Amino acid sequence: MRYGFGIDLGGTTVKLAFFDETGTMLHKWEIPTVTENAGAQILPDIAAAVNGYLKDREISREAVLGIGIGVPGPVLDSGIVDGCSNLGWGKIPVAQQLEALTGLPVKAGNDASVAALGECWKGSGQGCENLLLATLGTGVGGGIVINGKLINGVHGCSGEIGHVMMNRHETRRCGCGKCGCAEQYCSATGIVTLAKDKLQATDAPSALREVPKITSKAVFDAGNAGDPVALEIMEQYFAYLGEFLASLTAVVDPEVIVLGGGVSKAGQVLVDGATKYYKKLAFGGTESTPIAIATLGNDAGAYGAFKLVLSAFG
Amino acid sequence: MRYGFGIDLGGTTVKLAFFDETGTMLHKWEIPTVTENAGAQILPDIAAAVNGYLKDREISREAVLGIGIGVPGPVLDSGIVDGCSNLGWGKIPVAQQLEALTGLPVKAGNDASVAALGECWKGSGQGCENLLLATLGTGVGGGIVINGKLINGVHGCSGEIGHVMMNRHETRRCGCGKCGCAEQYCSATGIVTLAKDKLQATDAPSALREVPKITSKAVFDAGNAGDPVALEIMEQYFAYLGEFLASLTAVVDPEVIVLGGGVSKAGQVLVDGATKYYKKLAFGGTESTPIAIATLGNDAGAYGAFKLVLSAFG
Repeated sequence: MRYGFGIDLGGTTVKLAFFDETGTMLHKWEIPTVTENAGAQILPDIAAAVNGYLKDREISREAVLGIGIGVPGPVLDSGIVDGCSNLGWGKIPVAQQLEALTGLPVKAGNDASVAALGECWKGSGQGCENLLLATLGTGVGGGIVINGKLINGVHGCSGEIGHVMMNRHETRRCGCGKCGCAEQYCSATGIVTLAKDKLQATDAPSALREVPKITSKAVFDAGNAGDPVALEIMEQYFAYLGEFLASLTAVVDPEVIVLGGGVSKAGQVLVDGATKYYKKLAFGGTESTPIAIATLGNDAGAYGAFKLVLSAFG
Repeated sequence: MRYGFGIDLGGTTVKLAFFDETGTMLHKWEIPTVTENAGAQILPDIAAAVNGYLKDREISREAVLGIGIGVPGPVLDSGIVDGCSNLGWGKIPVAQQLEALTGLPVKAGNDASVAALGECWKGSGQGCENLLLATLGTGVGGGIVINGKLINGVHGCSGEIGHVMMNRHETRRCGCGKCGCAEQYCSATGIVTLAKDKLQATDAPSALREVPKITSKAVFDAGNAGDPVALEIMEQYFAYLGEFLASLTAVVDPEVIVLGGGVSKAGQVLVDGATKYYKKLAFGGTESTPIAIATLGNDAGAYGAFKLVLSAFG
């Protein structure tokens, strides 16, 4: 039996997992992401965790296929990461550096893309070879799997779906510096913005007026409890999300659209709401494409990262 | 030396070409597309042209790798075409039927996608493995090549970029039945609509008021001659096109964006205009992606169709 590591590198923690070659996760743990000094300690910390794990368990390097790692930034096919602002990184040859630090082969990918691969392999896209993942969190990320393989793009920007333009008249700014990106409407942050705008625009009573800090969860909770203002906010959100997904499947036409990220915890009500608008706006044969909720949660990245290892070195 | 056919099936004519295996086009000709009787004669006519060509020149079937064909509708990986309204076709197993009629292996693809493959192989994307083609004609079509291969999509709808949503407040209807598709703004038809709206909204004198029938060419001709109203129309069109292309490259991130179709005859002024807005709106590393004009013209489909043959049977 051979083994490998799947690593999900986030801005706060690094999630590490050890797999056997059949794809069974044998062990998982976390270490903190130290972003000080331009993130100089991040790869040495990961290498120490990997090297220590193998040493403690007396696992020989020959038994290890390699390391897969998902990184929160654009990753080129060469394994170079072209800057990760929330890690403090500029342009770094992540795969090469981690190889040098561990003596193991390394394959790197964008975190959302790697999560898409994980969902396609072991999550809600299991059995599919073509999948679009939209992660609806603080921002909107995405990953595209075509014929079982990740699409990285020439600049590592394939699947940066949060920056599809949805409103050229927007005056608020997206994190990327532009105005009107999908991320501004389809993220958890987008729901909060919608909610605040709605509560200001109407005098209607709403449980949301009593909530100390409005979150996407608070909106869904209030809506599910029948609050009419929250239901209107949700409906507007579903309309944006359905339109967004319909635009995406006119570009790449997957077997399944998977929704991940914090907003996806809303579950079936989100699937039903988005599907209603998606079906109205999707092109031709894509209107029957199912929308599903991601099932691997925080483990999607580790699974996908290890799938990179299997594809590259297995 | 071995050979093959590259065929571009259009609503009015079928363009046929005979290639040698190095990709040199040895001969090309056209036959009419007979759309009567639900297009029942189309494949028999193509087969007769192919069979007659081989017989007249005494070319043995063993010397022929196969036939590639681009079809104006969604094509599944299985070679089944899922309806082509302008041919009168419903769901037809095009590859299988043409194989039966010719005794040659057949590979089918969507016409715009096949043209993208042609441009990637022998046109303005030569040397690239990753290309996005946007055909700006009566409608807007597209094709996506990733790692040298066409992306068809699960329902044959990958690259149906004309149906990305650009204006949810639109009240005019797109050919697809929805309102607000990119095709309504970025096609030649879109320029005409923009021009008519502009001429109605202003009293400013314009050479376009004297043109008996406004076309996209008339707008570019007037603008290039300095007509201020035509220049405003062009500027608005460039803004739409740049925004559209920026949204697309946030989904798939190619080496080059190639513009084809009738509007692309405007040439460098189109590239410069679209690039100006594209650079403002494109995400991260994709802002440097070059925009180029397609160079194969009406031959792109035949080249791409023969490339399908080389990839599948070569």
